[in-house]
Amino acid sequence: MADKKPKREESKGDSSKVTFNIDKAKNFPDWYDRAIEVAQMVDTRYPLKGMNAWMPYGFKALKLMMRQMEMLLDAKDHHEVYFPMLVPESIFGKESEFLKGFSGESFVVTHAGKNPLTEKLYIRPTSETVMYSMVREWIRSFADLPLKLYQTVNVFRYETRMTRPMLRVREVVKFKEAHTFHATSKDADSQIKEGIEIYSEFFDMLMIPYLVVKTLPWDTFAGAEYNFDFMSVIPDGKGIELASVINLGTKFAKAYDLKYETEKGDHEYVHQTCYGISERELGVVMAIHGDNKGLILPPLIAPIQIVIVPIYFAGREDPVRKMCNEVLGKLTKLGFRVEFDDSGKTPGEKYYKWEARGVPVRIEIGPRDVEAGKAVSVRRDTGAKASVPVAELEKSIRLAFEEINKTLKENGQRYFSARVLHFATTKEVKEKYTERLGMLGLPWCGDQGCAKKLEKDIDIPTIGFKPYEGKGQKCASCGKTAGVTELFFGRTY
Amino acid sequence: MADKKPKREESKGDSSKVTFNIDKAKNFPDWYDRAIEVAQMVDTRYPLKGMNAWMPYGFKALKLMMRQMEMLLDAKDHHEVYFPMLVPESIFGKESEFLKGFSGESFVVTHAGKNPLTEKLYIRPTSETVMYSMVREWIRSFADLPLKLYQTVNVFRYETRMTRPMLRVREVVKFKEAHTFHATSKDADSQIKEGIEIYSEFFDMLMIPYLVVKTLPWDTFAGAEYNFDFMSVIPDGKGIELASVINLGTKFAKAYDLKYETEKGDHEYVHQTCYGISERELGVVMAIHGDNKGLILPPLIAPIQIVIVPIYFAGREDPVRKMCNEVLGKLTKLGFRVEFDDSGKTPGEKYYKWEARGVPVRIEIGPRDVEAGKAVSVRRDTGAKASVPVAELEKSIRLAFEEINKTLKENGQRYFSARVLHFATTKEVKEKYTERLGMLGLPWCGDQGCAKKLEKDIDIPTIGFKPYEGKGQKCASCGKTAGVTELFFGRTY
Repeated sequence: MADKKPKREESKGDSSKVTFNIDKAKNFPDWYDRAIEVAQMVDTRYPLKGMNAWMPYGFKALKLMMRQMEMLLDAKDHHEVYFPMLVPESIFGKESEFLKGFSGESFVVTHAGKNPLTEKLYIRPTSETVMYSMVREWIRSFADLPLKLYQTVNVFRYETRMTRPMLRVREVVKFKEAHTFHATSKDADSQIKEGIEIYSEFFDMLMIPYLVVKTLPWDTFAGAEYNFDFMSVIPDGKGIELASVINLGTKFAKAYDLKYETEKGDHEYVHQTCYGISERELGVVMAIHGDNKGLILPPLIAPIQIVIVPIYFAGREDPVRKMCNEVLGKLTKLGFRVEFDDSGKTPGEKYYKWEARGVPVRIEIGPRDVEAGKAVSVRRDTGAKASVPVAELEKSIRLAFEEINKTLKENGQRYFSARVLHFATTKEVKEKYTERLGMLGLPWCGDQGCAKKLEKDIDIPTIGFKPYEGKGQKCASCGKTAGVTELFFGRTY
Repeated sequence: MADKKPKREESKGDSSKVTFNIDKAKNFPDWYDRAIEVAQMVDTRYPLKGMNAWMPYGFKALKLMMRQMEMLLDAKDHHEVYFPMLVPESIFGKESEFLKGFSGESFVVTHAGKNPLTEKLYIRPTSETVMYSMVREWIRSFADLPLKLYQTVNVFRYETRMTRPMLRVREVVKFKEAHTFHATSKDADSQIKEGIEIYSEFFDMLMIPYLVVKTLPWDTFAGAEYNFDFMSVIPDGKGIELASVINLGTKFAKAYDLKYETEKGDHEYVHQTCYGISERELGVVMAIHGDNKGLILPPLIAPIQIVIVPIYFAGREDPVRKMCNEVLGKLTKLGFRVEFDDSGKTPGEKYYKWEARGVPVRIEIGPRDVEAGKAVSVRRDTGAKASVPVAELEKSIRLAFEEINKTLKENGQRYFSARVLHFATTKEVKEKYTERLGMLGLPWCGDQGCAKKLEKDIDIPTIGFKPYEGKGQKCASCGKTAGVTELFFGRTY
């Protein structure tokens, strides 16, 4: 397998032989498209807008990332399920706000072959309606609650805005949506906290920097009571919603007659929450961590964590190849995901290729290394090199992974700090803010009229609000000092 | 978790309190529906025909089964990918036989919201067309071949026949379809052999008995050169196709212009194969192995492999509960999937419930067992009981799993032998065959006219043929003795 794979990848579009020539900081959109192409994450040549094919390397990274989320959800007693993809109009339309919010952007099936169907079928844009129409039969009494379910499914939205692989698509390939059911409003609020904890842990694992904000009513999920959004920023300066953690209250329960029997024998509506992530997170990982050489993947989700590159000198190949294979065997046995690149390329071409693919650690082995029983270990993030005795490779690689994580985290935080801007007045905003800068915060008293006024005044949409760090702030709209929070504005994906 | 889950499951539909009262041998369809319901595999109450929701227990079994197939495919250098679900008409229709075979039974998207789309989109019934239209860009030269891909996706077919959960559905939730690309016809033939080996190993793991037959031209996959079908029989006497291993030759390559550059620099069409399995296999596992108490799941895919049932005596609960928890901890740590049923039900109710769900081994622990440092181990398949010292539980359980596998395999083979009938003449068939009996073989010379004549004469559809076991057979149609194979007939799902 090691013999064949590099060959195949070499010839594919010859992308590995072309240099990047795109500055990520100056031209992020082109950098992103090129980085995805060169690393063979997804193939964007499908003729339908916002629908892409996932190539083996990209799909493996996606699976590894999804596996982490599954472990987090399983640990908190969420059960995996699957609900049908097609939703009859009669079920889709039961919750009126949901219908209003989603019907316009959903794909609709009207025929089977040439025959018209008797009822239109919606392709799920998200699964609230189909799930809640059935779960009704799964919940009888208080003893059935809480019930926490999740599924990983493809969902479709007819996006009219520009699409971008992973970040904004029409077919979301892996939407991992959790839906929970509770006896009381208080239990649902607690679940929102748990959802936020789970997602915080997940984004921390991926070293994605974020803010958690509560959204304003007009930005809240269709049919929800309130929701918290995890927000990050893409290097083009646009904000991006990483995930939403949504308290649905009893709105859907009322629409779908979701009741349970209490201990006293009464029948009450269940309280619900939902939250989801998707491949978008992988797009954000690539967008934030990558550099001008291409991707930098966190070791946790890198399909190949270590690439071994032999440095051959004519006539002295055998001992080098032998030692590379030994190291390959040893590291693989230890559980690392390792590739030995024994293709016919030059070492320089190999470095370029595997750097572009974001492989965290490269091991170089030449004749002198063989003699000394050593190998050269190179970090993808910093390029730092170290000569390491083969016996100490494991320790050295584990340490390198930790340090890579630390660097990615620190760089991410530094990057994010520069893109979350804090202003005191609309005047300041108008003087200093440019669209490419990220998200900007203004002090806000909590009055919706004030929020609308600010939004209109600075002409940037609201994102959500969070407690102000610090005291003595005045609402940038009305000047009040009581209950001031920080309200964020920005263009978003 | 152990405290909550049983509670929830108890109240759900109260199905665990109802006895089966259905004889599997006499009334298989009702037995199957009831077994699925009681075991909470899928919920069939969704209002769209052939589309079901997967409940946590069923979905876990499905995942475990799929995981086995992934390991088999990965070991043979197949790479996982994902291709878009929606297919524009222009791509869908490129291979004319495929279009003819699938367009009539495909769901068609015509609108986004209220707006008509400019081109009709087909929901994939299988992914040949979308995949081959893109893979064209992935294959440049001989060095890219062989290329072996697979994906696990939902596919849709507008079945007009009666649907049955897992066995025949309109939404196939987990279609695991492999597609391979080769330089030569010979390589494609070899790949067909590898596909057959992989599937044989898979069905052997699940103890599903089968025949591998080559299909007649008029039963061959739309657009294929030839295909082999793995055939089994459901207890209602109907044959069922477990999987198809298909040689596509160069038909699709020609339609999608899939060429590669040879070592000499020529451009040749690639040779292709494809093969797939789905949740249908889980349906067959349940149908064949189950008994009048409900499911019997092979330990390999049982979501719960061992259930611990405490036998409480008033006032002596604590030491029993303590030992149950110890055994739970110990077995879980060893990697078994274990449930401790500490719910308020009687032991009898618990036995019934977990037997219906097909849990391979039950451990009972009462006060006297605690005193003796023993536990009672009960096999689901035979009901055989053994008193085992706790220190030897692991060994005993591993042995029980092996024996369960052996029994299921032997029972399966015995069951299958009685449903694959070998006749010599059409006269015999007419005298002895009844529709509920399975698949019947007749000697056949290989002439298509003879096959058609036999099919018409006995009025049962052909399934496929395989080498005759034994010699000296005469074609049941023309009486020739040269090149005689066994041709099978039967009603199928």
